[in-house]
Amino acid sequence: MEGRDSGRAAEDGAGQDVGGTVADVGEFGLIREVTGRQQQPVGTVVGPGDDAAVVSAPDGRVVISTDMLVQGVHFRLDWSSPEQVGHKAAAVNLADIAAMGATPTSLVVGFGCPADTDAAVATGISDGLTAEAARVGAGVVGGDVVRSDQLVVSVTAIGDLGGRAPVTRSGARPGHIVAVCGKLGWAAAGLAVLGRGFRSPVGVVNAQRAPEPPYTAGLAAADAGATAMIDISDGLLADLSHLAEESGVGIDITSESLEVDRKLVDVAGALGADPMRWVLTGGEDHALVATFPSFVDLPQGWRQIGTVLMPDTGVTVDGKPYDGDIGWEHWR
Amino acid sequence: MEGRDSGRAAEDGAGQDVGGTVADVGEFGLIREVTGRQQQPVGTVVGPGDDAAVVSAPDGRVVISTDMLVQGVHFRLDWSSPEQVGHKAAAVNLADIAAMGATPTSLVVGFGCPADTDAAVATGISDGLTAEAARVGAGVVGGDVVRSDQLVVSVTAIGDLGGRAPVTRSGARPGHIVAVCGKLGWAAAGLAVLGRGFRSPVGVVNAQRAPEPPYTAGLAAADAGATAMIDISDGLLADLSHLAEESGVGIDITSESLEVDRKLVDVAGALGADPMRWVLTGGEDHALVATFPSFVDLPQGWRQIGTVLMPDTGVTVDGKPYDGDIGWEHWR
Repeated sequence: MEGRDSGRAAEDGAGQDVGGTVADVGEFGLIREVTGRQQQPVGTVVGPGDDAAVVSAPDGRVVISTDMLVQGVHFRLDWSSPEQVGHKAAAVNLADIAAMGATPTSLVVGFGCPADTDAAVATGISDGLTAEAARVGAGVVGGDVVRSDQLVVSVTAIGDLGGRAPVTRSGARPGHIVAVCGKLGWAAAGLAVLGRGFRSPVGVVNAQRAPEPPYTAGLAAADAGATAMIDISDGLLADLSHLAEESGVGIDITSESLEVDRKLVDVAGALGADPMRWVLTGGEDHALVATFPSFVDLPQGWRQIGTVLMPDTGVTVDGKPYDGDIGWEHWR
Repeated sequence: MEGRDSGRAAEDGAGQDVGGTVADVGEFGLIREVTGRQQQPVGTVVGPGDDAAVVSAPDGRVVISTDMLVQGVHFRLDWSSPEQVGHKAAAVNLADIAAMGATPTSLVVGFGCPADTDAAVATGISDGLTAEAARVGAGVVGGDVVRSDQLVVSVTAIGDLGGRAPVTRSGARPGHIVAVCGKLGWAAAGLAVLGRGFRSPVGVVNAQRAPEPPYTAGLAAADAGATAMIDISDGLLADLSHLAEESGVGIDITSESLEVDRKLVDVAGALGADPMRWVLTGGEDHALVATFPSFVDLPQGWRQIGTVLMPDTGVTVDGKPYDGDIGWEHWR
């Protein structure tokens, strides 16, 4: 189905539930169902249903990022609704585009699941993806649905720089300041809560299920002169280590500048955990951390948490190496 | 690691085998290994290793397609080498870009595998991907590696239209001719051979393992005035049905215009199969089929196989509906 047909189909079928399994609905039936629920933004020249989509790229460059989410590794359907899984699959990719100082324009989605998967799970994931993309004006312009033993959602996001230079990980220089925008440690707290079998407090649990990255803060940081930026997917210290390595600098974080929300303190108290560990090493909130020249007025929502130092000091907290694992690595 | 570093790393480590499992090498070690083996084309502004890649999009529009390959569904490692799996994962996506009349510029790759997967499998798949992309001048500019129970390779390809209008599935009109470029039925024959436990003849077996779509024929067709085009992934009749439906036309194929290669006849004879069925319904060769105005001189390699008819006749062979399943659908 082409983009021009999507609007019409959306009027006919949007939001209705589909019954049965994906095998009952069929590959092409499922594609019709999920593409029929969407409206495409004006930048979508050719939408879902052709060999490939065509999307406007006014800057003359495109920003591209891809992330794969696997059931049991990145999400659990007994912890999250299908819509939350779709939301998360979109958010982790959109945050990467934001971290380059770009605006997301479109997503494509690879979706694998067993034949006996409820069709409503597939359409729910698609609805969550589409809704989160729409929040930033991006369309889900294409995809692929296949059979697999395990549920897999693989998203690629495309973004436009609007004439800006991309903000990479390599531009931090000694003397710059380090600032963050967005939540730290909430998703890690949520994971700890869910792991103990609880479903509340809903604030931290939903932070894990459906992160809310500060998308527009990436653009604001780029416009304010950010010299390097990264989205926090593995953990603040882990991702700052990537940035420090690429920039060839050291970074020191001041722990007292890291506000630990009352909610995290309460949850940590109930679970016997250290809330500062969640803040420093918890991933999956997809906050943005960036470096700026010291004279910059930080944009709204950004707060200074540290400074860039000379090379070879690594990433330190209050001048000392952090004691413990700094973040997530697969297969370990 | 950024694009500017890739060349240096490639000199240090290209083509060397890595020992152990992906868990031994680690997520970041594997990423270093596979990105270090690549050279990036000039259009890659920011290569692998940042939150997102940045790629030149000179046309002001980009073409995007995604396909997911799952072990046991789309490939088997006892049938194909890791390099062939990577080749195939690239080819199926690059063919979709070609089928729009565009030139592939870049790929991103989502890769999931169990912790005990040989690291050489992962690097072999990456090498195959990179080599096939390089054949058309495209770079592998980014990716994601995750843990999964089943080996999954999810590729997204980006292409540039070079000022051309995209050739969609919807422009065929009655009186146009139908033409094809590339192999038909070879991959299906190869699958039949592999399924019986044989590994030869190598021509048909390799067509299944590592298809060779006629990438540049898509561009030539667009320049010659193709009115609709699709790559044959599900089977000639199945994909022509998609094209006919989107264009609102009927299509008749003339079976005697379909050359059945001697090799296919021989293999079919040995297996007691019908070679014409492979030609009409076999997918995975990723030949291109397109419609053209009847006055067009077909570009090199394209051969007429049928004509476009008035709506509602469906897709027929020698004027009659085809007797049997016309192609592949997942979960069925």
